[in-house]
Amino acid sequence: MNTDEFTKALSAAEVKVAEGFWKDKMELARTKLIPYEWEALNDRIEGAVSSHSIMNFKIAGDITAQNETGAPRKKEDEEFQGMVFQDSDTAKWLEAAANTLLWQEDKELEATIDEVVDVICAAQQPDGYLNTYYIINGLEKRFTNLRDNHELYCLGHMLEAAITYVRATGKDKLLNAMIRYVDLIDSLFGPEPEKRKGYPGHEVIEMALVRLYRLTKDEKHLKLASYFIDQRGREPNFFKEEAEQFGNGPIWEETYFKLGYFQAHKPVREQKEAIGHAVRAMYLYCGMADVAKESKDDSLFEACRILWDNITTRQMYITGGVGSSSTGESFSYDYDLPNQTAYAETCAAIGLVFFAQRMLEIEPDSKYADVMERALFNSVLSGISLDGTRFFYLNPLESDPVACEKDEKCQRADATRQKWFGVACCPPNVARLLSSIGGYIYTVKQDTIYQNLYIGSSFTKEVNNTKVGFEVRTNYPWDQKVTVMVHTEIPIEFCYALRIPEWCRTFTLMVNGKELDCKTKNGYVYCRRTWSDQDRIELTLSMPVVVMRANNKVKENVGKCTIMRGPLVYCIEEEDNGKDLHCVTMKTDMEFSPVWEADVLGGIVAVYGQGKRRLDNTKALYCPAGEEEYDDITMKWIPYYTWANRSVGEMAVWIHSR
Amino acid sequence: MNTDEFTKALSAAEVKVAEGFWKDKMELARTKLIPYEWEALNDRIEGAVSSHSIMNFKIAGDITAQNETGAPRKKEDEEFQGMVFQDSDTAKWLEAAANTLLWQEDKELEATIDEVVDVICAAQQPDGYLNTYYIINGLEKRFTNLRDNHELYCLGHMLEAAITYVRATGKDKLLNAMIRYVDLIDSLFGPEPEKRKGYPGHEVIEMALVRLYRLTKDEKHLKLASYFIDQRGREPNFFKEEAEQFGNGPIWEETYFKLGYFQAHKPVREQKEAIGHAVRAMYLYCGMADVAKESKDDSLFEACRILWDNITTRQMYITGGVGSSSTGESFSYDYDLPNQTAYAETCAAIGLVFFAQRMLEIEPDSKYADVMERALFNSVLSGISLDGTRFFYLNPLESDPVACEKDEKCQRADATRQKWFGVACCPPNVARLLSSIGGYIYTVKQDTIYQNLYIGSSFTKEVNNTKVGFEVRTNYPWDQKVTVMVHTEIPIEFCYALRIPEWCRTFTLMVNGKELDCKTKNGYVYCRRTWSDQDRIELTLSMPVVVMRANNKVKENVGKCTIMRGPLVYCIEEEDNGKDLHCVTMKTDMEFSPVWEADVLGGIVAVYGQGKRRLDNTKALYCPAGEEEYDDITMKWIPYYTWANRSVGEMAVWIHSR
Repeated sequence: MNTDEFTKALSAAEVKVAEGFWKDKMELARTKLIPYEWEALNDRIEGAVSSHSIMNFKIAGDITAQNETGAPRKKEDEEFQGMVFQDSDTAKWLEAAANTLLWQEDKELEATIDEVVDVICAAQQPDGYLNTYYIINGLEKRFTNLRDNHELYCLGHMLEAAITYVRATGKDKLLNAMIRYVDLIDSLFGPEPEKRKGYPGHEVIEMALVRLYRLTKDEKHLKLASYFIDQRGREPNFFKEEAEQFGNGPIWEETYFKLGYFQAHKPVREQKEAIGHAVRAMYLYCGMADVAKESKDDSLFEACRILWDNITTRQMYITGGVGSSSTGESFSYDYDLPNQTAYAETCAAIGLVFFAQRMLEIEPDSKYADVMERALFNSVLSGISLDGTRFFYLNPLESDPVACEKDEKCQRADATRQKWFGVACCPPNVARLLSSIGGYIYTVKQDTIYQNLYIGSSFTKEVNNTKVGFEVRTNYPWDQKVTVMVHTEIPIEFCYALRIPEWCRTFTLMVNGKELDCKTKNGYVYCRRTWSDQDRIELTLSMPVVVMRANNKVKENVGKCTIMRGPLVYCIEEEDNGKDLHCVTMKTDMEFSPVWEADVLGGIVAVYGQGKRRLDNTKALYCPAGEEEYDDITMKWIPYYTWANRSVGEMAVWIHSR
Repeated sequence: MNTDEFTKALSAAEVKVAEGFWKDKMELARTKLIPYEWEALNDRIEGAVSSHSIMNFKIAGDITAQNETGAPRKKEDEEFQGMVFQDSDTAKWLEAAANTLLWQEDKELEATIDEVVDVICAAQQPDGYLNTYYIINGLEKRFTNLRDNHELYCLGHMLEAAITYVRATGKDKLLNAMIRYVDLIDSLFGPEPEKRKGYPGHEVIEMALVRLYRLTKDEKHLKLASYFIDQRGREPNFFKEEAEQFGNGPIWEETYFKLGYFQAHKPVREQKEAIGHAVRAMYLYCGMADVAKESKDDSLFEACRILWDNITTRQMYITGGVGSSSTGESFSYDYDLPNQTAYAETCAAIGLVFFAQRMLEIEPDSKYADVMERALFNSVLSGISLDGTRFFYLNPLESDPVACEKDEKCQRADATRQKWFGVACCPPNVARLLSSIGGYIYTVKQDTIYQNLYIGSSFTKEVNNTKVGFEVRTNYPWDQKVTVMVHTEIPIEFCYALRIPEWCRTFTLMVNGKELDCKTKNGYVYCRRTWSDQDRIELTLSMPVVVMRANNKVKENVGKCTIMRGPLVYCIEEEDNGKDLHCVTMKTDMEFSPVWEADVLGGIVAVYGQGKRRLDNTKALYCPAGEEEYDDITMKWIPYYTWANRSVGEMAVWIHSR
């Protein structure tokens, strides 16, 4: 590999997102999600599960101060509360909040962040250590259970927050603190004989360290990331040795928490199938792609490619959801994609977006952006309510409130979004993604600008030594037209590459009203020419309603179909289509009517079509099969991401069809 | 209710089963199952899970002897091993073995039983107590956890064995021992103020006590059964109080072991839906029906009727399997009947047979015998291999070895029958049912003989003061003809009632070659006339292959069908129909060819028909739905009970159809 050939994403700081679908989501994050989550972190949401995350830092700070100065320690609320990884909730909130400062000045928010940073840094130990669980519960136990206790995970998230905050404000207090913590880690773990051979039970520090390396250019940060990647799953297995040494107990090994749960069953380059906890897996693969890119490591990139293909061609829901099994929140096996019991954690879809972005930065191939778009518009957005204050942890493709209540196989599924969770990883993860969505639209490789997502936005970029302005206007995903305006003081040659989405069968491309003869490669149309000021690209991505089916190997979907329009997967809900959605049959050869409904679900293109409903013509549990009887019905579909925002009821993506 | 009106089953001792389908199963039980299980109980099956059940009794006997005589206790193997209810495995084996003595003299087996009885009785405490778990682990803890620790359950099973052994041989040593134990229980638990208000966590003692009452005519035995039934689920709840008193811990309450798991969530007469652990539920309902009959208790019988209807019209698989959820081995909720994750424990189907038999003894209605037959031919028989030495605990309606290995939702399902189980309730339960099958064929009510099952057999019965011999000849279920021969020295009037099975659409009935004008009521044809020697009834139950479907409310079966021929549910297997059975589609309007295949699966009527197989025409995980492509195929069905007796592979009962 040659890094000169790599593409590089334009950051959220460089791209100004214009009014429209995603700007609304960014504002939702800024004005609703982030303030709401701040309240949650401070335990001020009535009826929500307590977080205690900020309080943990305060208590840890008191303990640190007492240890250093002998000052009397406060006695109130002095217990650690929450999960062992509770620190990461604050870290992710911090990153999300810092993200918004990249594109929206907010002195009040910045002051709040500064206060939080002070609270966090006050808890830091003299040697750099900073994890409230162990500071409060006893430092003698730190680093004795990397497998389960998330110290490196919490550091990874805090490091990401610190880097983002520096980028947004130049303020480096948190970053410096985190670098001290990284130095401590670096002194304890690594390939050198005197160091322990540990690596995290929950990945994320790998990608954080590469981000740090990109900021500091300090090779040791890349080396540490690279070490964590390559040590993972090697024999003798660290987690086994650690469990023996510290008596962590083999109980997990006997349940579903086998080594594969941690992706530690074999060295990462030998892993050919995505297995185990889906969020951990996604974060690992992100780290692998990051290290592969920075280290120009072809074999590591090839490992990423194999895992990518396994996920996206065998283990991904049509919504971009991944990790189908609630047992271990994990990948299960090829084509095992049940609908009602789907786990499809919001965080896992977010991880898939991260992974796609990283693959795209190594090789421009629309397949990565296709999956990124699929996950963003469907399985990620379904994780939050339209008002930004309720959350799904699981994103099933079929839901029945009765099953949620009574079917033990659905016991972790909710029929309605929740206020907060004991394990609250998803809400702040959505916040940090939505607040940085500008960074996922474009990548640049030499003098080629890639447009990966169609989001109204503008940016200025130096191309071939000339500053060029770009302005993209679109009402995507509701409308099929995308216009790109070029602003340049002097005519200049460069290439503008537009992604032709997988879902799009026909498109037209005009430059200044005329068709341009462009080469298409790996899903992008490359428009290379000398561009002048006010040049206009008009791309029309034909966006009919398309009936989709799954591969025959997906057992549960045989005989079923769903519809998509553009990147949006649609579903039907009880509110529009009545109870017993499994008795509804759609015709696959019908005409569909997409209708813009401004007042419905925040404004959507709903889709209407003809269907049939099986009649209940027997009370018998089993009876001889006669001619089946149906009523004709009009079906109404809504975008999947908007489900469960009205009355509580059934939902189905895949529908019986004939 | 008037007990004069009750029917009474002819016992296995009264009926001689003739060569044929069920005689083969009785012989399988006698010559294979029971000897095999004896080896298993004595830990002599290589590669099987250890039982230790007999050894527990020996150790307990040593301890009892030492306590009484001060004789030195043996030191070897002195630990209790196995489940807390391990005694019941020996009890059920004993009952099965005793059953065979009702119809087949076997001095060697009788000698073995006598030895076992000696071993068991040697462990009995001076006050009558007899449970090896507590004798070995400490008697001070006995009766401190009726909820979980199965003392009354083990007694119930041992009592059933004792009663059967008396009936078969007249030997009453075990019975007398068990009556002493019952007396102890009676002195401790009951409605009287000075007694504890306990009842068993796992029911079975209720039905055993009614059997004892029928033998002893001692009202106190019925009263105790009646007390256990009526105390159950009353407030204040005994299990809660007991847990508090003895610190048994509320942990189960927090998981799926809620009070409903034990059917102790409300008084039994108020229970309208079958819930909780399916085997416990079935045994409770049996006890309720028994007590209702003996006590002429209409409201209790009405409670049984409501539960019967709930189970058989909303919670039963087409195979007669019940208890669809592996979580808690339990009933789930109405119409929740998943195929691949079906639990449908063998013991639960056996319990349903018991329940059906009891309902039939209260009111002659073919719906009870229909369900009894359905369970016997399908979900019970599928529990054992054709050679009688391998066992299924679960009886799913769809199986995929890959899912059994990898899908956590199928984690308790096996793709092949097992040698033995840590919880080995099912194998001896099958043995005791098969060995007593003769007792399920006929019931008698005044001068009416009811034929409930069509099994070649003969018996003599005094009817209206005249001894009449009956001989039933049939090759059922393979053949549709049933002949009943009457043998009487003098012409005598009585009624012979023949069940017209639910699955039978048309039948003919001839007496001595002429059609008889008979009244049909509640599914029985009543042939009342004056019968002479050599009179012959010929019943022809038309037995075409019938395509069956499930009620629309059974979500997973919408768009699917299966076939039945007579009482047999059929399935398809990978061995005959290739992999990916979910890609096979059956036509519902086709001609089927039933073919007798003597050399296949012990001799079966296989069924052939035309079907289609979806072609794999894409490698994409999701794609636009085009015209679906199919190959024409010939499908082969086999009776469900014979599945998994050849190569390991997929199986499906419900098949996509159109």
